[in-house]
Amino acid sequence: MNLSKRTELRRIPDRGSHDWATINQILDAGFLAHVGFCLDSQPFVIPTLYGRDGERLYLHGSAASRMLRELETGIPACVTVTLVDGLVLSRSAFDHSMNYRSVVAFRRARKIADPEQKINSLRVISELKATTVLEFPIEEASSKVRSGLPLDDERDYRLSLWAGILPLETKSRQPIPDDK
Amino acid sequence: MNLSKRTELRRIPDRGSHDWATINQILDAGFLAHVGFCLDSQPFVIPTLYGRDGERLYLHGSAASRMLRELETGIPACVTVTLVDGLVLSRSAFDHSMNYRSVVAFRRARKIADPEQKINSLRVISELKATTVLEFPIEEASSKVRSGLPLDDERDYRLSLWAGILPLETKSRQPIPDDK
Repeated sequence: MNLSKRTELRRIPDRGSHDWATINQILDAGFLAHVGFCLDSQPFVIPTLYGRDGERLYLHGSAASRMLRELETGIPACVTVTLVDGLVLSRSAFDHSMNYRSVVAFRRARKIADPEQKINSLRVISELKATTVLEFPIEEASSKVRSGLPLDDERDYRLSLWAGILPLETKSRQPIPDDK
Repeated sequence: MNLSKRTELRRIPDRGSHDWATINQILDAGFLAHVGFCLDSQPFVIPTLYGRDGERLYLHGSAASRMLRELETGIPACVTVTLVDGLVLSRSAFDHSMNYRSVVAFRRARKIADPEQKINSLRVISELKATTVLEFPIEEASSKVRSGLPLDDERDYRLSLWAGILPLETKSRQPIPDDK
């Protein structure tokens, strides 16, 4: 994937800007984050459910989770959310790409100790009992968006091959009830 | 999300095992990886297309990509692929979870210099020209699978609330042709 094609990088400190709107839109459309942290220069990338409440992301999980135990010590973290909108099929197999929207946010996470804030944050995502909740203030974040048609080499446009976008959509199927 | 519920962690060194079959199945069903690396203890998690060829993952992108420039120096990396199969809706909002399959693989990436191997690896994913291709041997990897119905607290089963699974499926819509 050529990330540099028709993409925009946004890294803006102030909240009110259009760019924060984009970042929040992407965060609200997703529910799965990939959380990165380093232990002795070894990176770990773990999939996690998240919720957004204003300018905070809440990550949660079992208090036994290794990831949360490490993150709550306040080590630097990176939270990435990616939404795939389509596969971009070019004339040359070498120019295939994807349309996507992503947010990459850098911060140290903070454990939520205050019971009231913890209950509120659990409403945003969820799980009670042996649950640790980490708060991840969104202060440094960037979004990246690729959209539109393939960008082929000039000479490849002469080829009589189909090219375009195969839009992808995540749909829910018939719910499966729990008989219990 | 309570990762510890009804999940299985698999971390097996030998290739032929059932577990490698699971890992390969997950890798072949996906196309988007989240790649993690550390620079001065700061983790970065970047979404990237990948391809699998036997026991190797190929990551690729513009030779100008910061991620590839860093990875090709041989720093430790973590490649995570996550497939979401459904949202698990429990009686209590505090027990919501998701059904998913994921692979987490740890390795140093290697830049591919040999032209023939580079062309072969580009066939697996793709992009020519100013493209760097990194090879990521899958030697240490684990898969994690959560499936099945919600696990509510015993007392919550008495509540007359709907609970079950909302299966999610990624579908392609009508292709959009490139008029060029």
